Amino acid sequence: MKALAEMIEASLGDKEIDLLIKNGKVINVFSGEIEKKDVAIYKGIIVGFGDYRARKILDIKGEFLCPGLIDGHVHIESSMLTIPRFAQAVIPHGTTTVVIDPHEIANVMGIDGIKFMVESSKRIPLNVFIMLPSCVPATNLETSGAKLDAKDLKPLFKEDRIIGLAEMMNFPGVINRDPEVLKKIEMANRKIIDGHAPGLSGKNLYAYLMANIRSDHECTKPEEALEKLRNGMWIMIREGSTAKNLKDLLPIVNTKNSRRFLFVTDDRHPKELVEDGHIDSLIKISISSGLDPILAIQMATINPSQYFGLNNLGAIAPGYRADLISLEDLKKFKIKKVFKDGSLVFNNGRTLISYDKKLKLSIKTKSVRIKPLSDESFIIKSDKAYAKVIKIIPDQIVTEKVVKRVILKDGIAYPDIKEDILKIAVIERHRATGNIGVGFVQGFGLKKGAIGSSISHDSHNIIIVGTNDIDMLKAAEAISEMGGGLVAVSDKKVLESLALPIAGLMTDISVAEVQKRLSAIGKVVKSLGCKLSDPFMTLSFLSLPVIPELKITDKGLVDVNSFKIVPLFEE
Amino acid sequence: MKALAEMIEASLGDKEIDLLIKNGKVINVFSGEIEKKDVAIYKGIIVGFGDYRARKILDIKGEFLCPGLIDGHVHIESSMLTIPRFAQAVIPHGTTTVVIDPHEIANVMGIDGIKFMVESSKRIPLNVFIMLPSCVPATNLETSGAKLDAKDLKPLFKEDRIIGLAEMMNFPGVINRDPEVLKKIEMANRKIIDGHAPGLSGKNLYAYLMANIRSDHECTKPEEALEKLRNGMWIMIREGSTAKNLKDLLPIVNTKNSRRFLFVTDDRHPKELVEDGHIDSLIKISISSGLDPILAIQMATINPSQYFGLNNLGAIAPGYRADLISLEDLKKFKIKKVFKDGSLVFNNGRTLISYDKKLKLSIKTKSVRIKPLSDESFIIKSDKAYAKVIKIIPDQIVTEKVVKRVILKDGIAYPDIKEDILKIAVIERHRATGNIGVGFVQGFGLKKGAIGSSISHDSHNIIIVGTNDIDMLKAAEAISEMGGGLVAVSDKKVLESLALPIAGLMTDISVAEVQKRLSAIGKVVKSLGCKLSDPFMTLSFLSLPVIPELKITDKGLVDVNSFKIVPLFEE
Repeated sequence: MKALAEMIEASLGDKEIDLLIKNGKVINVFSGEIEKKDVAIYKGIIVGFGDYRARKILDIKGEFLCPGLIDGHVHIESSMLTIPRFAQAVIPHGTTTVVIDPHEIANVMGIDGIKFMVESSKRIPLNVFIMLPSCVPATNLETSGAKLDAKDLKPLFKEDRIIGLAEMMNFPGVINRDPEVLKKIEMANRKIIDGHAPGLSGKNLYAYLMANIRSDHECTKPEEALEKLRNGMWIMIREGSTAKNLKDLLPIVNTKNSRRFLFVTDDRHPKELVEDGHIDSLIKISISSGLDPILAIQMATINPSQYFGLNNLGAIAPGYRADLISLEDLKKFKIKKVFKDGSLVFNNGRTLISYDKKLKLSIKTKSVRIKPLSDESFIIKSDKAYAKVIKIIPDQIVTEKVVKRVILKDGIAYPDIKEDILKIAVIERHRATGNIGVGFVQGFGLKKGAIGSSISHDSHNIIIVGTNDIDMLKAAEAISEMGGGLVAVSDKKVLESLALPIAGLMTDISVAEVQKRLSAIGKVVKSLGCKLSDPFMTLSFLSLPVIPELKITDKGLVDVNSFKIVPLFEE
Repeated sequence: MKALAEMIEASLGDKEIDLLIKNGKVINVFSGEIEKKDVAIYKGIIVGFGDYRARKILDIKGEFLCPGLIDGHVHIESSMLTIPRFAQAVIPHGTTTVVIDPHEIANVMGIDGIKFMVESSKRIPLNVFIMLPSCVPATNLETSGAKLDAKDLKPLFKEDRIIGLAEMMNFPGVINRDPEVLKKIEMANRKIIDGHAPGLSGKNLYAYLMANIRSDHECTKPEEALEKLRNGMWIMIREGSTAKNLKDLLPIVNTKNSRRFLFVTDDRHPKELVEDGHIDSLIKISISSGLDPILAIQMATINPSQYFGLNNLGAIAPGYRADLISLEDLKKFKIKKVFKDGSLVFNNGRTLISYDKKLKLSIKTKSVRIKPLSDESFIIKSDKAYAKVIKIIPDQIVTEKVVKRVILKDGIAYPDIKEDILKIAVIERHRATGNIGVGFVQGFGLKKGAIGSSISHDSHNIIIVGTNDIDMLKAAEAISEMGGGLVAVSDKKVLESLALPIAGLMTDISVAEVQKRLSAIGKVVKSLGCKLSDPFMTLSFLSLPVIPELKITDKGLVDVNSFKIVPLFEE
């Protein structure tokens, strides 16, 4: 009560405020206007406009002032960064709020993973709201680090920043009335439930909507987005590192319906965060494609605030948090300054806060536990020569199932490097079961060595592709020793690596540093003969058994169309 | 869970639904479009569109289908009707949801009054959401039936349909940081808090907004509404029986800002409910003034739904309640049918539900307790002849303070009928304190008899205006005997009356019946010489000590400008 009284006093001008930002052109997301006014800030809150006695006055000389940007749906794990490091990466791009789905870390660490995200997002210059992962594990065709039922998730809603249930990917589960799925839906009663339903239409869509699911970020075609919009879904336009839907969906946004659109990134890798930016990049593309800048800004500010009920975010008005960005040019959306809770955190190309302190948290994030491996771990015994091979389609996460003849010697099957048929292995790494799925993959192009990663959707077991078992073993052991990460090996030597010691997914170094290492690994992998543009990204999806056509998990080869584990060799 | 599974099944078309409304032109408040499609309804919920196997098919032959209308702020007590009777009155006008502030009944009956509103709004064809009265009593210059502190109100938030704190009229209390006011604000933390701040501007407005107050229905001028809109308030455009702001505010509504506007009635008396209608009348006026019909409809449907977080109301989409109205003509907004939860409740001029059953509730609504009166109760003893007189300004709720010579005989002051200076008395009627405030009023024009009412803002004591003490006594006694109501008396006889036995404010008869009686009383009062257009409305505001200039309560004459009880006679 004392706090509120103090804020009222500040608003009235009865006490010195902290900061007065003068001569800004304020973007008003309520009225759609641009107003010349001075913004008064006290204790991180906008307390008024006009003439105030201030401890500090900052003249921004006609720069535009825009509310801080909101990413309505992002898996921070895709950036490989801890949340403080992610904040450091996106603050220069004007992002001050994110709604995250800690789906990846939850698949590895369960409730502890979610708690880690809650803990590590405190006291940083980024508002982080959390939606609870709805599908852990994604399937029972793989061994995940955790299984989260409705009863596990429910107590977490006590946490202030946990505001809903994240993307309900299991839309067949909703439609077919899977009891555990419906339990989760009912647990989230009165909370927000995000959708994820690519291509769902007509009666199946209506059925999905009965579960109080009110958004979707999987629209790829205008007609699809229009149907979902008309049926009451908020449309999250996604522009991630792999899935890019902005240019396809922008044409349907107009003044009558724009209030129902949000911008999200879903997954952005370090490279795109460094080179393209974050939500600001969506605004830039939208404006340059002809969208009214105010509508574009609303889609990144007041609209997500409205959808998620973030009562004091997404606008420049009394009582709202002073998360602001200043722009030299509205149409180019060139960010000059970023204020978080009234503090200048980015100015003229320079980030003004340091994150160099070590993350100190009570939650243990070491996650890699594998049964000791040997040089026999990846042996494929067979008396048949025709194997089902995962054929990669470059730059896509779907694969093709092909049947190829492999090299057979003394009852053992070998990769055929000339034909680019390599060995692939998925090693269970959560509970040291010793599960290893082995098979063949075509399309990597490696001529020697092996590469591996502990990022492999959705269970994030260790996945290795190699030309020989010895280097594959070395790769797996190196990943295990780092507690997770990416590695390129040749002749039993680790050539390059990136340690991801937090859940095998993330690191607490800067985005620039991560990007430097990724680029170095990329060069090495290329030198080993690989022709893929992003081999680790491709690798990470080869274990995702919900995306067609042939995938591999620690339990074996998965025919996604039949949704079954299938034998490697053809009869 | 079984219920949800059943709804999903219905959506999929896997079971027979209850109703298919065919050939409607559906108004889509999300996309701003009008779509020809068939609406499928099961268990009161919209489950889909298109072809469904239905128990009942209704062909509406090209009529428009619009979501049921929402009144975002209304004191139902002003209609003098119980909630079931109010529902009966507004359903023909397409209203299917109201957000009420039971401020009047709470001033009489406290928590029991609020509970009565909760109880009596169950099982009726109207969704009723309740905002908790924030200012009971409005002042300490009167004796109310109850005093509601933050600690009294807080437990009520457990009730599902209690969604926030109603209009914070005590804006000086907010700005001056009155501890009890701030306690209420903090109690409503994370709930919706409605505002009421006529004319508040600049730093005072900013200070008020710090309290998380996010709407206002008191704007009378375009500039005022624009300032509040720009500062983040939702603007409730009010068109009540006395306060009418629609035509003044409509010009500022445009496609860029319309999402922040709502329609409300605040107070509608039986006469206007019968003659003009309800929220439909605001839509009609808006469209005929040139507003896009879709925007007007959004202001009465999806916008209030958004502001109040009424997740499944205000749109025609899967998962939304099947509260619908059909229109023969969009521009004339002529209502043909009304569906509540999928049931046809109004069709072609006829209401299809009966409310003739008696309200049976556990809460006692008898409220009138006065100390026995005598023919000496209203005597004014004085040795001075110049009195402060309340001068009525016709059709306004403000009064003028004038000083007049009254008739003085043997130390007793009498009304001067020739000069139209009548006697006015306010009799405390909640706890039989015996408090009576007496004074003089000019402007009623009564030549004989007396009139009285138990509706007198905000404490609703008994208020009587008369030409002589005997008739005033009769009027007070008659009101007491009825348990509250309106009465016209002459020559010791009750000429006409309307009993309002529920809290002295409401009755459980139909709006038509109430209006008939009011019209009869009106004629009688006219025959007694009164020239005011609505004498009981005028009377009811003479005790409201927050509206200038001179008012009267059970504690005596109130000079509103000095906010003090003042002596009746001048020195």
